[in-house]
Amino acid sequence: MVAICPSILSADFARLADEVKDVEKGGADYIHLDLMDGHFVPNLTFGVPVISSLRKYTSTPFDAHLMVEHPETYIDGLKKAGVTYVTVHQEACIHLDRVIQQIHEAGMKAGAALNPATPVSSLECVAGMVDMILIMSVNPGFGGQKFIPYTLDKIRAARSLLTKSGNTTAVIEVDGGVNSKTVQAVREAGADFLVAGSAVFGAKDRTAAIAALR
Amino acid sequence: MVAICPSILSADFARLADEVKDVEKGGADYIHLDLMDGHFVPNLTFGVPVISSLRKYTSTPFDAHLMVEHPETYIDGLKKAGVTYVTVHQEACIHLDRVIQQIHEAGMKAGAALNPATPVSSLECVAGMVDMILIMSVNPGFGGQKFIPYTLDKIRAARSLLTKSGNTTAVIEVDGGVNSKTVQAVREAGADFLVAGSAVFGAKDRTAAIAALR
Amino acid sequence: MVAICPSILSADFARLADEVKDVEKGGADYIHLDLMDGHFVPNLTFGVPVISSLRKYTSTPFDAHLMVEHPETYIDGLKKAGVTYVTVHQEACIHLDRVIQQIHEAGMKAGAALNPATPVSSLECVAGMVDMILIMSVNPGFGGQKFIPYTLDKIRAARSLLTKSGNTTAVIEVDGGVNSKTVQAVREAGADFLVAGSAVFGAKDRTAAIAALR
Amino acid sequence: MVAICPSILSADFARLADEVKDVEKGGADYIHLDLMDGHFVPNLTFGVPVISSLRKYTSTPFDAHLMVEHPETYIDGLKKAGVTYVTVHQEACIHLDRVIQQIHEAGMKAGAALNPATPVSSLECVAGMVDMILIMSVNPGFGGQKFIPYTLDKIRAARSLLTKSGNTTAVIEVDGGVNSKTVQAVREAGADFLVAGSAVFGAKDRTAAIAALR
Amino acid sequence: MVAICPSILSADFARLADEVKDVEKGGADYIHLDLMDGHFVPNLTFGVPVISSLRKYTSTPFDAHLMVEHPETYIDGLKKAGVTYVTVHQEACIHLDRVIQQIHEAGMKAGAALNPATPVSSLECVAGMVDMILIMSVNPGFGGQKFIPYTLDKIRAARSLLTKSGNTTAVIEVDGGVNSKTVQAVREAGADFLVAGSAVFGAKDRTAAIAALR
Amino acid sequence: MVAICPSILSADFARLADEVKDVEKGGADYIHLDLMDGHFVPNLTFGVPVISSLRKYTSTPFDAHLMVEHPETYIDGLKKAGVTYVTVHQEACIHLDRVIQQIHEAGMKAGAALNPATPVSSLECVAGMVDMILIMSVNPGFGGQKFIPYTLDKIRAARSLLTKSGNTTAVIEVDGGVNSKTVQAVREAGADFLVAGSAVFGAKDRTAAIAALR
Repeated sequence: MVAICPSILSADFARLADEVKDVEKGGADYIHLDLMDGHFVPNLTFGVPVISSLRKYTSTPFDAHLMVEHPETYIDGLKKAGVTYVTVHQEACIHLDRVIQQIHEAGMKAGAALNPATPVSSLECVAGMVDMILIMSVNPGFGGQKFIPYTLDKIRAARSLLTKSGNTTAVIEVDGGVNSKTVQAVREAGADFLVAGSAVFGAKDRTAAIAALR
Repeated sequence: MVAICPSILSADFARLADEVKDVEKGGADYIHLDLMDGHFVPNLTFGVPVISSLRKYTSTPFDAHLMVEHPETYIDGLKKAGVTYVTVHQEACIHLDRVIQQIHEAGMKAGAALNPATPVSSLECVAGMVDMILIMSVNPGFGGQKFIPYTLDKIRAARSLLTKSGNTTAVIEVDGGVNSKTVQAVREAGADFLVAGSAVFGAKDRTAAIAALR
Repeated sequence: MVAICPSILSADFARLADEVKDVEKGGADYIHLDLMDGHFVPNLTFGVPVISSLRKYTSTPFDAHLMVEHPETYIDGLKKAGVTYVTVHQEACIHLDRVIQQIHEAGMKAGAALNPATPVSSLECVAGMVDMILIMSVNPGFGGQKFIPYTLDKIRAARSLLTKSGNTTAVIEVDGGVNSKTVQAVREAGADFLVAGSAVFGAKDRTAAIAALR
Repeated sequence: MVAICPSILSADFARLADEVKDVEKGGADYIHLDLMDGHFVPNLTFGVPVISSLRKYTSTPFDAHLMVEHPETYIDGLKKAGVTYVTVHQEACIHLDRVIQQIHEAGMKAGAALNPATPVSSLECVAGMVDMILIMSVNPGFGGQKFIPYTLDKIRAARSLLTKSGNTTAVIEVDGGVNSKTVQAVREAGADFLVAGSAVFGAKDRTAAIAALR
Repeated sequence: MVAICPSILSADFARLADEVKDVEKGGADYIHLDLMDGHFVPNLTFGVPVISSLRKYTSTPFDAHLMVEHPETYIDGLKKAGVTYVTVHQEACIHLDRVIQQIHEAGMKAGAALNPATPVSSLECVAGMVDMILIMSVNPGFGGQKFIPYTLDKIRAARSLLTKSGNTTAVIEVDGGVNSKTVQAVREAGADFLVAGSAVFGAKDRTAAIAALR
Repeated sequence: MVAICPSILSADFARLADEVKDVEKGGADYIHLDLMDGHFVPNLTFGVPVISSLRKYTSTPFDAHLMVEHPETYIDGLKKAGVTYVTVHQEACIHLDRVIQQIHEAGMKAGAALNPATPVSSLECVAGMVDMILIMSVNPGFGGQKFIPYTLDKIRAARSLLTKSGNTTAVIEVDGGVNSKTVQAVREAGADFLVAGSAVFGAKDRTAAIAALR
């Protein structure tokens, strides 16, 4: 079983309620939310106020990916905005264990994300406590990039690390360049959650697009 | 003559197209866009992608207020997104003359914003080249704040500085706590552009709210 | 009337309770606390935990001078530690009005400090709302420095600014190189609170030293 | 043989001389000094001036743990203050080999500390040159936290790394949540130095508390 | 009397010894050295090692303009490299008085530089202690820019400030776009030192170019 | 076959054209260029303008080592200046895969450098895409340091990593303390490119010095 998580980064930001309802109807499992602050990555997208507005138009759970520095400052706001998964970058967190604890204390699930160049072994200490490992299969912060093939090895390594840590509930999410051409390899490598931007929101028939990925 | 600039910070972010069309119909002169990056101010709101989406739903000009560090990195994107005024903070720009030149070279109008505590005299060198001085009448980054009375003196000081610099075309914008109770004092002090958040988007009849401010 | 504020920077940090009780007996009006974080200034001295410990040994009020970056993060702790005056540096606060409001909301008095090179006019917007202006008469972060004569003009300018702002209750504090040779000029210039480090804690008879300054 | 290192973070900062003499009498092997700068960790505790004052009241050696950014700037001061071990964080040192060399050149012993989430393998290059590996068993910067069980594996990994590097003299220190309930597991995992805060300073009979840990 | 200070920024960096000897022969009064660190300005030019190498090929005094963050860290090196004037930016120095003192203690002359947008009044406290005020007449960090006319007012304001401060020995230097078209206005406004890049090094006959500016 | 890469850090910066032509004649394979920005390392050396000037005096290819923060901002300039290899530090690049891609897109070869304390495994994700791994055998930023013996193991580990990644074309460069005493061990460990500063530029007969290393 795989979960499809359309990313609103490829949606029409002026009509997010409609866009989200559309993919909800199409079978989306999670709405993926790409927060970017113009510092961790060069792009500035949106933050908690946009998520709060969106929450009341859909019952699909929210999966927030924080491409921001000092992500701990957003945890309270994300909780109030009704987010389920909060994923922070290993590269942004000198105190990663503490941030994961803070997300858990707020009552949310905690993920750890890795840039393409960051080894999976950097998560070996926290592997037992995370609810998600997010393998970035493109460099975060830019749209329209091609899937990086070597990240398939990282998906396998993440699964192996979780297993070794006795963590049987955490999921592996893959984000970047996931589409009809790459999805099979990504799934075979062990991905549980698939983030899809233009592959879903760019499709004429989003229900079909989601079904195709599934 | 005064221009009314509703700020979408108080709008429903899930239905921005509708919200903006509503105030356009109600007589808004500009749509005011509050970019925040979680660094210059603690809040993260939205960036260029949201503005780009919004542009195609309205013909009302956009007035962008950048509460961000290194604002020069957003100039190209804002131009492509169809923004008319780009206003940067004096406190965020060690090279303020250069940033203003960059905005002009991109074909947009350039504003300089001042936090409540920053003296108007900090703009004395660039007063002749700006198209707008934005007097913050609350501390940026937070909603629902009360108008700070001493900023009325700053509106007058800004007008005096522009006059002394021979700048007869620049406008003075005021942002923060502008509502039916404060608007008269703000206008008498010399404001040309009034930013209104909840005073417009929070009103039942937005057309009436805009008319009232005007 | 002048208040004498011995700074524990010159005290024996291993016996602070005794040291503070000694100057309390000697007539100190405030205990001056120099927080330094190794970033705003190169030196790292002490923070809230030391102040909390000290609070229970004396009834003399505390006057905390924050030579730190992002001073707003310490406000809650200083309130719990029983501090009366919290003074932050203009050079450390892009949002100075907001920080002063936060100190007031916490129920403490708020001061604004200026490095020697920073003009008094940088405080012209907030002059009406502060409870103290602290004129640094040496560069902060180092002990044993000589009083900088041009800061006498700044004391006079600070008084003039407060008067012009209608602020009749704020005090002017002077910190750095205040001793028997400089005290008369400092007082004549208009200082209300005198910080004294080695001039008090370095004296054999601290009661006499305080009396001499007074 | 294990060394007990009471941390003054849990002592009465107003009476440090007495507090330290008390644990010295009680058999403390080292006085553990937790420097925090409000940047590497959110808390600001104390720096070199406090340590210098304390030095003359005890002959127990000092073990300084620098939870600060750019720790290299404090090395000279720590040497003058009579510190034996200086431990810096891997996460704070892009040039870790250089900082260790600088501590050695100053004539002190050098430790490398790891946050809970940081893998032991990050020290594999410098394992042959350190005098101490400090395994944080709670997240640094906050008191009163619970021991993190997965750090027991890190103690074992640190021992293994030292052995593999041919380093037979370096010690392994463990800091955070060490008390009567956790001490046995910590020692069995291979710890040489135990940091104890409230477990010693919070005890009525500190001599007994130290003996119990030992 | 005016001093001509050719800037090696427009020289051939591969043959600096020859270039500098050429303008020395041509009558240059100072060699102007533009240090840039890629942080205070986007460009990275050169630092102390280049200056040290150059020192032994000319007896013309050196005038160093530090477009860098934390300029205090270069003072010792500049002294050893035989520099006469060290000029730091007001915008880069929270502790400007201290940096000027450090330059003086190293036995060099100290200048304070202002970006185009920075008011001259920001130097009012240190005006009595500087040996030079450097008015940037273009934005630092980029070559080939046009002289900004409003900086002529700043030259006059700088002279007025020095006079008011009783500083009769400090010089006013102007840097940026100084050439045959602008030199007369710059000199009439009160400049003592003229920095010329391409106007000298770009000329076929550098002796004539220097004479023309003079 | 080994390539000898004299570093101009030990050359006479006032006569770079002559210096570079001298080692070119002596058989240098690459000119090694040490860019330092005073932030990633404490020293500030030179940047793109110096390289551009130098390019026209030699046909020996350039090998640039960027000891700078945000190295991506220099890529365009280095391309225009005619550089062949651009090497960035793993410790300076949160988005290392992206920076390597940018160097490749600019048409240059991309290297990844490691400080002495940084494990080779930190490059395991990008090992298949780099054209060079640079093993620092001293801490960057300072001259005249002794070769660190444990880095020999890192050279072997780098070779092993490249082999395992199927990367048969990337070279291993070693920089720091390479001279007649250390060169044999360095080559036996697997180095392809040897950086030599004083060992070449400090020698009377540079041709002989290069031959000796070869």
